[in-house]
Parts: sequence; C-alpha cells; structure tokens
Amino acid sequence: MNAMGATIAEKIFSTRCGRPVHAGDVVMAPIDAAMIHDITGPLAIQTFYQMGGTRVFDPKKVIMLFDHQIPADSIAAAGNHQLMRKFAAEQGIHNYDLHEGVCHQVVLEKGRAGPGEIVVGSDSHTCMYGAAGAFATGIGSTDMGFVLKFGALYFRVPETIRMTIDGAFQRRVGPKDLILSIIGDIGADGATYKAVEFAGSTIRGMEMPGRMTLSNMAIEMGGKAGIVPPDQVTWDYLKSRRQVTPFELDSDEDATFADQRRYDVTNLVPKVAVPHNVDHVVDVTEVAGTHLDQVFIGSCTNGRFEDLAEAAAVLGDRNFSEDLRVLVIPASRDEYLKTLRAGLIERFVEAGAMVEAPCCGPCMGGSFGLIGPGEASLSTSNRNFRGRQGSAEGSVYLASAATAAASAITGVITDPREV
Amino acid sequence: MNAMGATIAEKIFSTRCGRPVHAGDVVMAPIDAAMIHDITGPLAIQTFYQMGGTRVFDPKKVIMLFDHQIPADSIAAAGNHQLMRKFAAEQGIHNYDLHEGVCHQVVLEKGRAGPGEIVVGSDSHTCMYGAAGAFATGIGSTDMGFVLKFGALYFRVPETIRMTIDGAFQRRVGPKDLILSIIGDIGADGATYKAVEFAGSTIRGMEMPGRMTLSNMAIEMGGKAGIVPPDQVTWDYLKSRRQVTPFELDSDEDATFADQRRYDVTNLVPKVAVPHNVDHVVDVTEVAGTHLDQVFIGSCTNGRFEDLAEAAAVLGDRNFSEDLRVLVIPASRDEYLKTLRAGLIERFVEAGAMVEAPCCGPCMGGSFGLIGPGEASLSTSNRNFRGRQGSAEGSVYLASAATAAASAITGVITDPREV
Repeated sequence: MNAMGATIAEKIFSTRCGRPVHAGDVVMAPIDAAMIHDITGPLAIQTFYQMGGTRVFDPKKVIMLFDHQIPADSIAAAGNHQLMRKFAAEQGIHNYDLHEGVCHQVVLEKGRAGPGEIVVGSDSHTCMYGAAGAFATGIGSTDMGFVLKFGALYFRVPETIRMTIDGAFQRRVGPKDLILSIIGDIGADGATYKAVEFAGSTIRGMEMPGRMTLSNMAIEMGGKAGIVPPDQVTWDYLKSRRQVTPFELDSDEDATFADQRRYDVTNLVPKVAVPHNVDHVVDVTEVAGTHLDQVFIGSCTNGRFEDLAEAAAVLGDRNFSEDLRVLVIPASRDEYLKTLRAGLIERFVEAGAMVEAPCCGPCMGGSFGLIGPGEASLSTSNRNFRGRQGSAEGSVYLASAATAAASAITGVITDPREV
Repeated sequence: MNAMGATIAEKIFSTRCGRPVHAGDVVMAPIDAAMIHDITGPLAIQTFYQMGGTRVFDPKKVIMLFDHQIPADSIAAAGNHQLMRKFAAEQGIHNYDLHEGVCHQVVLEKGRAGPGEIVVGSDSHTCMYGAAGAFATGIGSTDMGFVLKFGALYFRVPETIRMTIDGAFQRRVGPKDLILSIIGDIGADGATYKAVEFAGSTIRGMEMPGRMTLSNMAIEMGGKAGIVPPDQVTWDYLKSRRQVTPFELDSDEDATFADQRRYDVTNLVPKVAVPHNVDHVVDVTEVAGTHLDQVFIGSCTNGRFEDLAEAAAVLGDRNFSEDLRVLVIPASRDEYLKTLRAGLIERFVEAGAMVEAPCCGPCMGGSFGLIGPGEASLSTSNRNFRGRQGSAEGSVYLASAATAAASAITGVITDPREV
C-alpha cells in the first residue's frame, strides 16, 4: 500500500486506516484492543460517561483486569474494583478481575494482541505487546474514555528507530541487560514518540519472554511503541492462544528511519540502572557491594518463568540473606504454575523469599513492598524514579533477575557471574 | 504449693511468683516471654524509652516479628519496621522480621512458649499459646513497654472456667465449629477476665492445630487465657522445638472454678458467626445461600496445614467460583512449605485462589484483601466486627476452613457436608 518503503508502524497504520499513511501523518485509527486496569480504569469509565457514552464500541475488544492493588489494599481500591466489575457486567466485557496476573503479561498470554494490530492500554508499559508484532502504546485515562466510546483514537504516525542487535549473550547476561544498556546509550528521551524496532540475529534467536522484556521498556527511552518483527517464534507463541494466519510484517529496506542503531551483545555485561533515572546505567561491577534492603523479582518486565528460572539457577541450593527482604512475584497465574511445577516456588520459599500471588507488587510503590527512608531496593521492574517504590528518601536500582538473585544472596549488589 | 485445690492459672502464678496465690490476688509476675509485632511494637518501644528504659529485661525473652503489614504497605509501615529492626539490633533481640509468618503461629513453632510459663504479647490473640500449656495473654503496648523494661507485670490472678469437651466430631466439623459454638453459647463477654480451660476426651484426642484454634479464640469470649492442660501431644509438639522436661500441670479436682461447662461435639454441625459479632453464631444451614464477595482461608486461627488440607479435601479437583476472590494464606513459612509439598498450593492456584506469603492478610482489614461497601467476606479468622475487613458497610462471616472452601466453590455460604 505504500509507494516508497515503509516501516512496520507505517504499514500497520496504513493497513488499519485503509490508505497509505506516513510518519508525521495524523490519523484517526481504529483500535483492535483496549486494556484497562484497576488504577486507570475508573477514570476512563468516568470519562466514557462524561462523553455521553452508553455502550462501549465493542465489548469483545475491551480487556479488563486488576493487578495494581490486589487484593484490594484499601476501601477505596475495593470500591474501584466494584465500579469496574459493575461496568464489565453492564457492558458485557470479560473481566479477568484479579485472577490472572499483571495486565501486560495477561494480554499476551490470552492472545489479546497480535501482529499488525493497534492496541492501546491505559498503562505506560502497554508497549510490551510489540513483542507480538502489535503497534501497542500506553494512553491516558481520558484518551481511554474516548476509545471506549468510539473505538478509535487520533495518532500522529510515528517515525521509527530501527535497532539491530547481533551477537550471543554471555552467561548470566540477557535481554534486561541489553535494554538497560540501550536506554543508557540513547537516554530516557532518546526515542521520544518514536516507534522502536528490535531486529537482528539476537532478536531472531530470542524467545518471547526476552522480547517482552525489550518491548516493555521501549517507553523508558520515550518510545511510542517497541516492536519486534513477527517471525516463527511469534506465530508459534500465538497459535495456541488465538486463531492466526501468519503473514509478513517488517520494515522495508528502503523505509525512512529516524535513526538506525546497531548493538552487539557479545561483550555485554550485567547492567544496573542506578537511582534515580532509568538511563543512569552502569556495569554491575561499578555498584557491586552497594547495601540493599529489599530485592524484588517480578513485574511485567521480568516476572516470567524464564526470569524466575534464571534467578533460581543463580540461587542454587543456597539461602537468601536474612538481612534483606526478598519478594518473588510471578507475572501471572500461568507463570506462577510453571514456576511452582518446576519446584522453584518451593526453592524460593525455602531460601527465605516471600512469594506473593501474581500482581504488580512493589513495582510502582502502591500496594505493598514499599521501602522506607534511606532504604535501597534492587528490582527487576522498569522504573526507578525517586519515590517509585516508597519513600522519596529511598533508592531503587534496576537489574536483571540474575543480578537480583545474586544480590539477594549476598545482601549487596552483586555481579551474577561471580556467585 | 497450694493448700487447697488449685486451677492451672493459680498453679502457674504460684510457681512463677514463688508463693501460693489464688484467684483474685494481685501479683507482680515475672514474664517468661514477650512478643511484639509490627503494629504494636513501635508504641511499646516508645513507652519503654519514656519509662527510662535503656536495656530490655532479657533480650532472649523478647520475640519480635512482622506480620500485619508485610511487605510494608506504606512508607509509615516501612518506617515502623526500620524502627523495630534498629531496636532489635541495639538490644540483641532476635528479630524474625517478615520471614516466618503470623506471630502466634511462629511463637509456638519456634518453641518460644511452653507449659507453666507466663507469656505476654501485644496482640489480642496471644492467648493461643495456651494450646501449649502456657498462661498467655494479650496486653496493650504501654503495658508491653513496662514488660520490656522490667520483665514483669501486674496481674490479678484470674478465676477459671473449666470446659469439658467430649464426643467425636462428624465429618467436616471440627475445632472451629466447636469454639464458635461455645462463644455463641457463653457470649462475647461470657468469660471476661477468666482463664478458660479446655479439657475432656475430645481435647485429649485433638492434635495441636485444633487446640491452637480453640485457645486462639478464648479472647473472643473475653477470656484472659485459654489453656489446654499439657499432655503427651503437647510434649511431643514441643520436644523438637525446645528442651522439655514433661511435668504434670492440670487443675485439681477440688479447685474452685467460676464455672464448669460441658459440651458434646457428637451432634455439632458447621457453625457460622454472622455480622457483626463473633457471638452471633448460627448453624451454617441458617445462612446457606448468602452471597459472598471474598473468602479468606488463613490467619493464626485457621491457617495451618491441617486447615488448608481440609479446605483442599473439600475442594477436590474442582475450581473456586470466579465470581468471588479466594485468598489462601498459610500462617507461617513452615505451614506454607508443608502445604506446598503436599501439592495443595498448586491445587489452590489452579482452582483460582490467590495464595499469598504468610502474613495476617485481610484478618484485620489493614494491609490487603479489604472489602468494599456492601460486600460480604467469609473468613476463617477470629473477628467479624463491623469494618473489621474493610468497609463498615461490609459484612464478615466467620467459619471453618471446610465451610470456607465449600463456600468458595459455590460463591455463597455453603454447608461443607453438602459439596
């Protein structure tokens, strides 16, 4: 449909808008799926009604679930859940409620986002569905109110930054280290409103969990989306979750990119984002020995079985330090059960961790796992802004599950290659 | 030491005070163990300092742990934990921190309370240690400040109500139904400031978990303590946890009792305490069909392996209703691991429950699992006062783990003998 070469984002918007569109064009695009959760959903619903909404555009395209404040951590949270349950029942929306896990993991697990689709969610890390080839982006609750009513939203078709990743990861180094490294390189605003594409041999050889980690954090460099071109890995992941008819979706070689960057992971080392910005990224060796009060292994970024298995591999038959709190929270019920059946929940609890039911946990410092003044947390999640996990006088470090497990054993930030 | 016959409480106070004392005597008694947790500990510590305290009476006799707000559900809670950790480090107190579970379960598991001892805790349900033959009672934080400094506390030696329980429980009926039945019979103030003794063939044939359920709820009839005369079951439980030299400790036949009551459990049916008082106790059949929004299986009252195994037996290979939230929270790390290794954590999660790390959970409506206005919770815990688990416009029903599991399957209060 595009005369000249096009990017994935341009192709998706062209197809869904039914006409060739280009980066910079402002379009009203149809929405293939819209996700709301317990924090942002109530305002979206309120906006929907304020706009005169009576029925949502298509209840089958609305995804509702609760993950941020579950089980309800306040009467107000319980009230929000009640409001959303009532809305779901009235509108015929399937509500996953608090049964399934963290929104982004659940959307992908349930096959609710796929290649070529435009998916929005009222949560920043909605960009994670780019791992499945969707153009997926986080929107505000008021925009979501509009989407719920009209099933469409204005977009400026974004320019694209193509990132080509080659090389093989060394032991105990992986996708989280890569994405932290990229963010450290490009900066927290380095891809603002750009669609980021993750391509290259490393990506082609990467399974879905790693791709999710990359796409999840596209927003942390300002990206509007973080897209992995769909390939056999994508289609294999999707085929047990939804009806799929594989098709080609990749940027043309002669597409116009805002930037093309190449990375090689061969010599990549474990990385840590240090307080208080996600682009303050250093080699783990630079901060090794830093005292920690809490380690969190979980979240939509790194709460999948593969992350927990990596953490368990680092742990071995040791115990976690008793001088800090270790929280392990699988990203979904499915991931929890995989982890349990592999014997790893037992191992984590034996070793001294608190293993909680799937939820966002301390990631956003709302519900539980908050840190106090002067305390330091190392977290496999995606943001370390001041106060993100509790006290504004606390510190949050971001790292991989391997680094988190190594640090939880010693009680200080620790290179996972050294334990 | 007593000329005339004495009750267990009189014997314990006589022995520990070094002279014969009788019900009604006011004594300054030495404290064998003092437990503080994260809610009441900070005020106790503050009081300790306000009284001029510098060193606690005996750091080995102070038990510290966190269970009510873990992982910290607010910056204030995190700060309380910090304050207590600092106190523990300065005073040489072993702090179980948030690693072990609910205070009362942990005190018993760790062998920190035993026959003939006077144990206090700044928590109402400290009376649970009576299951191990201790005179154990909950005290306020200011009294606890005094105890931390002086290692002693004024008591009026209580009169005793002897309850003799005979008969065998029918299927799906057990200690929780018995204690609810007793409380319904005697009333919430029926044993105010009395030591309650649980004796008889049913008790002698009861394992420690059931005894703990009974002793735990002595306070719910106003009891100062709820004591099971130590027997082989007691000593067997204790011997792997502490050094024990078994001795006789029971009330004399010619002791003076405030009341002696007999119960027969042969025809006991599942009981439910209905909103908003624990002594509003009815047969489950009277409230069967009542809509529920949440079921909580856990707490110091009924969060042990045996409770969870009973719930799992009722559940079988079915799923919980998706129309309500089901929270399963083992009372301690040990109980969690037993439950996990028996395959029951997997079963609960498969069935749709949220299984959380050991903590008090929604019992007192503080940290998580709160209910909203108009919602109803059925809980295996010990109190159903208005607002206890969230909104004052909500309702809390109390029942056994069997009744909780049956109700969680159907979504309405359900007789566990019928599923």
